[in-house]
Order: sequence, then C-alpha cells, then structure tokens
Amino acid sequence: MEVEAEEIFKEFKQHSISEFFKKNRQMLGYSGMVRSLVTVVHEYVTNSLDACEEAGILPDISVGITETGENRYSVKVSDNGPGIPKEYVGRALATILAGTKFHRYVQQRGQQGIGAAGCTLFSQITTGKPIQVKTFPRGKKRAYSCSIALDTMNNKPIVTDYAETDEAFNGLEITGEFGGVKYEKGERGVYEYLRRTALSNPHIQMKFVGPDGEEKIFVRAVDTVPERPKPTRPHPLGLAVNDLIEFAKASKSRKLSVFLMETFSRVSQGKVEELRKIAKEVDLEKSPDKITWDDSERLIKAFKEVRWISPDPTSMVTIGEDQIGVALKNILAPEFMHITARKPAIFRGGIPFVVEAAVAFGGYAGRKVDEGYEGNIMRFANRVPLMFDSGSCAITEAVKGIQWKRYGVDMDSQPITVFVNVSSVHIPYSGVGKESISPEEEIVNEIKLAVMESARGVQRYVSGKKMANSETSRYKMVMGYANQLASDLSTLTKVDREKIKGMLEVLVSKHYPKAKGSREEEVGEAKEEEG
Amino acid sequence: MEVEAEEIFKEFKQHSISEFFKKNRQMLGYSGMVRSLVTVVHEYVTNSLDACEEAGILPDISVGITETGENRYSVKVSDNGPGIPKEYVGRALATILAGTKFHRYVQQRGQQGIGAAGCTLFSQITTGKPIQVKTFPRGKKRAYSCSIALDTMNNKPIVTDYAETDEAFNGLEITGEFGGVKYEKGERGVYEYLRRTALSNPHIQMKFVGPDGEEKIFVRAVDTVPERPKPTRPHPLGLAVNDLIEFAKASKSRKLSVFLMETFSRVSQGKVEELRKIAKEVDLEKSPDKITWDDSERLIKAFKEVRWISPDPTSMVTIGEDQIGVALKNILAPEFMHITARKPAIFRGGIPFVVEAAVAFGGYAGRKVDEGYEGNIMRFANRVPLMFDSGSCAITEAVKGIQWKRYGVDMDSQPITVFVNVSSVHIPYSGVGKESISPEEEIVNEIKLAVMESARGVQRYVSGKKMANSETSRYKMVMGYANQLASDLSTLTKVDREKIKGMLEVLVSKHYPKAKGSREEEVGEAKEEEG
Repeated sequence: MEVEAEEIFKEFKQHSISEFFKKNRQMLGYSGMVRSLVTVVHEYVTNSLDACEEAGILPDISVGITETGENRYSVKVSDNGPGIPKEYVGRALATILAGTKFHRYVQQRGQQGIGAAGCTLFSQITTGKPIQVKTFPRGKKRAYSCSIALDTMNNKPIVTDYAETDEAFNGLEITGEFGGVKYEKGERGVYEYLRRTALSNPHIQMKFVGPDGEEKIFVRAVDTVPERPKPTRPHPLGLAVNDLIEFAKASKSRKLSVFLMETFSRVSQGKVEELRKIAKEVDLEKSPDKITWDDSERLIKAFKEVRWISPDPTSMVTIGEDQIGVALKNILAPEFMHITARKPAIFRGGIPFVVEAAVAFGGYAGRKVDEGYEGNIMRFANRVPLMFDSGSCAITEAVKGIQWKRYGVDMDSQPITVFVNVSSVHIPYSGVGKESISPEEEIVNEIKLAVMESARGVQRYVSGKKMANSETSRYKMVMGYANQLASDLSTLTKVDREKIKGMLEVLVSKHYPKAKGSREEEVGEAKEEEG
Repeated sequence: MEVEAEEIFKEFKQHSISEFFKKNRQMLGYSGMVRSLVTVVHEYVTNSLDACEEAGILPDISVGITETGENRYSVKVSDNGPGIPKEYVGRALATILAGTKFHRYVQQRGQQGIGAAGCTLFSQITTGKPIQVKTFPRGKKRAYSCSIALDTMNNKPIVTDYAETDEAFNGLEITGEFGGVKYEKGERGVYEYLRRTALSNPHIQMKFVGPDGEEKIFVRAVDTVPERPKPTRPHPLGLAVNDLIEFAKASKSRKLSVFLMETFSRVSQGKVEELRKIAKEVDLEKSPDKITWDDSERLIKAFKEVRWISPDPTSMVTIGEDQIGVALKNILAPEFMHITARKPAIFRGGIPFVVEAAVAFGGYAGRKVDEGYEGNIMRFANRVPLMFDSGSCAITEAVKGIQWKRYGVDMDSQPITVFVNVSSVHIPYSGVGKESISPEEEIVNEIKLAVMESARGVQRYVSGKKMANSETSRYKMVMGYANQLASDLSTLTKVDREKIKGMLEVLVSKHYPKAKGSREEEVGEAKEEEG
C-alpha cells in the first residue's frame, strides 16, 4: 500500500531547541549518573569563572553538594562575581542559545549559551523543581532571589517567587536539585574535576563541601586576575570564502581595501598593496557589500600567498609553563617532565589557537595497571578540564598518532602522563556537551608538534638515565643532603638559602655532571601539598 | 578595574539554532574533508530510505558525485520515494528542527529534523550556493523544481527559481555543491558507507557513480518493503517521573487508571489493580491532569515492582539473523561466525531497543596490521552504518569492556570482527551528527550480553578447532565432495537436492562428528560476490 506525500507531511512540525535537548539530554553531557553530576558542577563553575574574570574580580567560589534522596542531590554554587541584573536572569539561566558570549570573538570558557539553561532543564525533568537563584548585581542597590524554570515548548524562562532583600550578599548563588545523578570520588568525579580546575586556574579560591560533609579548600596561588583576553580581530589566514563575504556584508567601511584593514588583524596598507597585485581581478576600491563569491574566492587564495605575522597572542589566555610545572608537580610528583608552549596558530575561519603540552615521567604519572603502568592523557580546553568523551577528541587523536617508540617511550607500559591545554577564541568542540575537541587537522598537528617536542625531552632524560643511572641516583642523594645543608647553613649564617644552595649545586655538579635543558625540569622527591 | 553587571549584560542576545550550527558545523559531522562528504551522502540517503519505506515503496536510490574544483564536489541523490509537497519543501530542507519525525514514537533512521537542513547550510557556507531540488509529490499532478537556501539568522528557508514541469519523473532529486570536502575510497569513505548501507538494507537497489566515473550497482536482494515499524506506546518500565507527568498532562483520558492503560503498552486492567495495591496513596480515579510529582514518583516506584511483558517488538525493525549472516559472508567470508539476536529491552523513559550482534573469525575479519591482525568493530544504528566517533560509542565501550581472554579470543591479535546493530524508536546518539550511541548503561549491558554470547560461540569453534583440526579439515573435504555428489545425484534421480544432501550429511557426520550450535554457522571457503 503506497502512501501519498501529503499524508506523510501532514504531521510536519517545528520544534524548539529546548524540546530537542529535553529528548536528547545525553548530548548536553547528561548521560550516566556520575557524569551528569559533573556536568552540572562544570556548567555553574565555568560560568562563575567567566563572570568574575570579565568583571575583573578574583574568583572566590563555593561548591556544596548534599544528598537529598536515592540518586538525588542538591548542588549549590556561589561566587563573588558581578551577579545578574533582574531583567536578564530568566533568559541567562533558562533560555537555550541566549547569552552574551556566542557572538563575541574573545576567549571564554563558556561560549554557547547552553550550559546553565541545560542545568535548569535537567533539574526540571529529573526532580520537577525549578532552580533557586540569589544574586546581587554589581552596581544595583539590592540583592534579590527568585525561582526559575524553563518552558520547553517555547524555550522561554518562567520566573517565580521574586523577592528583594537587604541581606549582605555578593555575586551569584544558584541551587538546584537533580535526580538520576551520583556522587563519586575517583578519576571522573566532581572532586577530581574541581581539583583540575584549581590546578589550571591558580588565581581562584574554591571551597568544596561534599555530600559526606568533607570540606576541601583549594587555596589561591596567584593573587592577580588573569589579564582579560582582548576581543581580537580574525586573522586572514584560514578564513573561508563565506566568512569573508559575511564580514564584508556586515561592514560599514567605504571600500574593500579599508574593510580588510579594519576587520582583520595583521592587514596593513602594505599587505593590501600586495593583495592588490596578486588578486588583480578584484576591485579593492568598491564597496564591501558589493563583494561577490568570486571576489572572495580570489582574495582567500591571495591571502595564502602573502606572508603574515602570527595571530595576536593577547586574545588568548594560556595556563603558562610555570603554572603547568607547578600543577604537574602537585598532582604527579614526576621524576622528570618537559613542558612545551607553542606559538599561536590558526584553524578554520582564521580562528587563532595555542597549544601547551607537557610529558611527565615517573612518580604518579601514568596509570597503575595489573602488571605495570600505562600512559594517560590529561586534557584541557581554555583551562577547563575535559573529563569525558576522550575517544573522539583531537588531543587523544594527536597523542595516539605519535610514534612513541621513536622517542624510546612506551605509552603502553611506562608511567607517562601527557598534559595538553588548547586555548582559543572559539574551541571547536565535538559536541554540545563540550567534553572533547573536534579533530580539526591544524589543531591535531599543533598538538602533535607540542607533545613530540616534550617527548624528545623525555627521551633525552630516559636515555641519559639509562646511561648514568647510578651517577644520577648518587647525585640525587647528595643533592638531598645539599638541600637540607643549605637550609641549616642559611639559618645559621643569615645568608640567603637559595644563594647557598646555588653554590652547593655548582660544587656537586662538578662531581656528578648532568644535562639540564631550558624547559626540562627534574622534580624533587618531595610531593608538595596540593592546593 | 571592576565592571558592573549591566555593562556585561548589555550585549545579551538570543541566537538561532542555525547560527549555532553555522559556527559549530563540526557538531553536525562536518569536520575533516572526507568525513564531511560522507555526512552529506549519509543525510540524503537516510532521508530517502525513510521516505520510501514510510510510503510503502521499495527504495531505488541513485548517488552521483562529481568533482567541480579543488576539494569541491557536486553530490546528487535521487530516489523513487513519495517526494515533498511544495508547501513543505523549504522547511523540510532548510529549517533546522523542523520535520515529521521528531515527535513520533516510531523507529526511523532520521529522527531529529536536522540532517537535510544541515546539508543546505554546509553547501551555503562552503560554496555560496543553494541546493537544487526536483520532486514529483506522489498524489499531485505535476513535478516541480526549485532552489533552496537557509536564512541562518531566522532559521527560515529561502526558496527561489520555482518552476513546474511535465517531465516524466518520480520521487525526489537533490543536488548540492560542497567545498572543503574530499572523495576517498577506503574504510571511511562514501563508497564503504554505501556498501554497508546496502548490506544492512537488502531491500534497496542503489546505484553509485563516483567522481572517477566508476559505476557500482548494489543489487536488491530482497523484494519486499520491510514491514513498516508500528508507532508504539511507551513501556512503563524505565519511565522517568517527569515523563509520566507530561504524558498525564497531555492525556484526554478521564481517569488516571484509564490513562495508564491507554497511554502505555502492556498495562492491562489486571496490572492497574496491582498498581493500585502497591501505590495505595495515589488516587487512580482522579483526572490525569491532577497528577502531582509525588503521585508520579509513587507510580514509577510501583512500576518496578510489577512483572511486565517485554516491550512490543513490532515497533522495531531489525536486520535479522539471516541477513546479518549473508552480509558478513559477503564482506568478510569468515571461517566461522556466530550471530546473536537479543529480545527487546528498555532504556531511559521506557524506550524499547533491541540488539543484534555477531562475532566473525578468520577470512577477511579483523584488520591486517604489521605482524598479524587486530580485531575491529562494525557499528550500526537502525541499520545505518556508523563510521565515525567510535571512541565515544556505547558499542565500542561494550566491546572493549568484555574480558575477551575469558573466551580464548584476543581482540589484539586475532582476525575478529564484531558486528553490532542497535535498533530503537529513539537511539540516544551522543551528538547531533549521529555517529555514535551514548553509552547508556542499559544499552551497553545488552550489547555486552549479545557479544558475549557470540564470543562463546567463537570460543567453542576455536577450541574445537584446536582439538580437532585434522578431523575438521577432513570433514570439510569430504563434505565438499558430498555437496557435489548431492547435486549430481539429484539431477540423475530427480530427488530433491537438499534431501540427498541431508542424507549424505548424516552419513558423513557419523564418521566425523562435530558440534554445530543452532545459531553458529560455518562459512564455506567461497567468497560470494558482493551486491
């Protein structure tokens, strides 16, 4: 029995994005009970961090989780940030694809306008409850509180119980109750997520109280707000034909030549003249809104023949080599590590990104398995730890694509941890849940180059170690005494400890020569306290 | 310098879902040049198959790809389906989240209303061109053609060049031109995608012409349209509190008790009485729209204490054991295989699903690597091959979670192919690009059980093989003669060939006894022709 077309299409409907995610909440990271709880904490904490940094405030964040039933927990996250003005609070927390970040060309952790509204949706469908909000918008006179739910049919907020208060209170506090979730310590739980967040964001102070009542304070290690990433202009290299046309159509410049200089970074008068010579058919004196697909194609081709200065690194905030070193020492106390920071590069659409990587060897690096070790990978994007979906991530693909044997390193049997952070104005996440980076060719390549450089560092160490194993351990032993000796002598003589230690090091090194690369670091035996 | 809240929120905006995917096209499967081309073909072909089957038509599909420039290809997909009525064509092909499938509770390949509009978007941003459509809506008087683009700011179609025609033409033909794509043969290319589609859909006839002019016809193997999956009612087991409330609020039934029977499958009068006894506090005589969160919670709890009949399998269309056997023989010509079909099960929200699995050993199974073999996995969802994002897929997780050593099978060194197809009314894809299944616990478990059963089959074969290697080969040799003998005798005596063969088999088996499980199949040496 064959059916007519009209019959089939009579059920044609348009759906709201909220309905879509209600049916596909796994796409937002709500799959699995442990992961779902991490997703909630992740969304609220990254929002708090972004808000504080944008307002120029040193973040002070508190996360509390309490058990309220079987597989049911209440999550409260509060910050000292700028808060949310009343007229925006509903949309900010209960409208999917609304927000301040999506259209701006600046590095932030959140960028989609989905996360917080997703939490509201998840609370609603698992416990039937709205989220509770208390906020004191900076610059306003009073704090207020309210409840917020999401009208999924229309993707619109439902704000109730609005009340103002004179309570002394700062920032934003969100409380939600969630079902189908589970709190677990362990490699993929909330605690580990927060620990990694603290490590990659040394300027934050964070308190965590778990459902067992255990309290943990991650202490601020750096007392300055990171420089705010500057909104940047796109770099011409890597722009797509379509991007250029869209920028041109939206431009208010009088001429194409002026438009190019005003819209993109690194385009000078001199570069425009170069482009004019290469793309002869394109009239750079005409109005940008007259640009054709052919013009754009020719210009994009010409861009590739010009030598450009790298993209402006100030648009990106990295973790920094020093901080990566401190972080890895804290977590892994490795025997040796090598850190590599690449220069900014570009992927699709002229979007700049920058890769930092490290390879740590020994200590707590790698993962203990039955009969030895296997290597593991710690992934970060814009200083946010990525805990799930490692299988489909550019970082995993890059690390697995390296011929480790060439570096005398075996990811299958040695205690190795590979650390990678990708920073960008726009991280191309594989999914809406933002737990992995799409394996774009340029990004995978940069990660490979960074990790390979650090692998070479480890190779030098491991082969040196094999050659001079006894030498090294003797050196270490003596240096262990030397450290203590320097401290004692310093107390006695009031001479600076480091000065004495330096002298002793020179002395000892003469007897036990050992190579020390500029960015290679041998880590002492002592595992420092976390935080 | 601290900033006020108002200052930050003044840039607050709401964005369309089209703008979101324009910026995040990797989430739709448009990442990497080879994959992007497969995504286009995949979206159009699955839409054609769904449309044909829904209209009760045996699908006859043609896919043509031509190179039009550097990394630029034109893709034309045509079918003999019901076509699209004029008043729906714009929205069907250029509005994200519009369609006929999303809200229906029935198994189809597409379910989101994103795929075809995503292709239009991708064509537009990579070549600046609209897609070309020609269609003869079944039941209408004339065919028509038009061009369709997507207004991304408003997520609305732009239809131009509309023209009617009297041309003899059937079905739907879509042509699009795409940039930043690449055609490649190989394990993850268009050709392999189509081959696997043909194998898991034996009722389709498909022609493919590649950019090199090479023509391939995948011949229809089964002459009946698969039974249309019946829209089903949700099963009470596994329903979430929120789901039950939403069903109740939308119900027109007079009483909760009636609502339960009318809305869900397997709820009889008897079951209602059981529920009444368990959930004493819930008044089943009240109107469904009076249901409270507490009522719903109590009912959900009660559901778990009642014994239910499994979900109705007619809502799902599987590949079927026979067809899996034929398909695997065609592709892999394995030495041995074991196929397992599980009963329907349920995951989140009472959604039924069913798993079919097979483990093939030897022949072309597994993947050749340097010094031997490694096992590989062929993944399908609703008979659609999944080619990418294997790392984050429930199937991969399940297969990797099996302790293969216990089955005397080594996925790291033996020629093993694991085949899994998951069918469901609503596959919980990990991402919008639908290339992997979210690892929901119930689904992972079912896959594990299915694969483990087949692994046991392989174990019996492998150990039997070791024990009786010579025995088996002698049996095979003799049976080779027996087959021929049966044919000859049949021609001579006019007695049915199968009858004679059966007698000979009994005779031979007495001399060479060997175990043969019901669903285990030993595959002959001959590799049948594909198609």
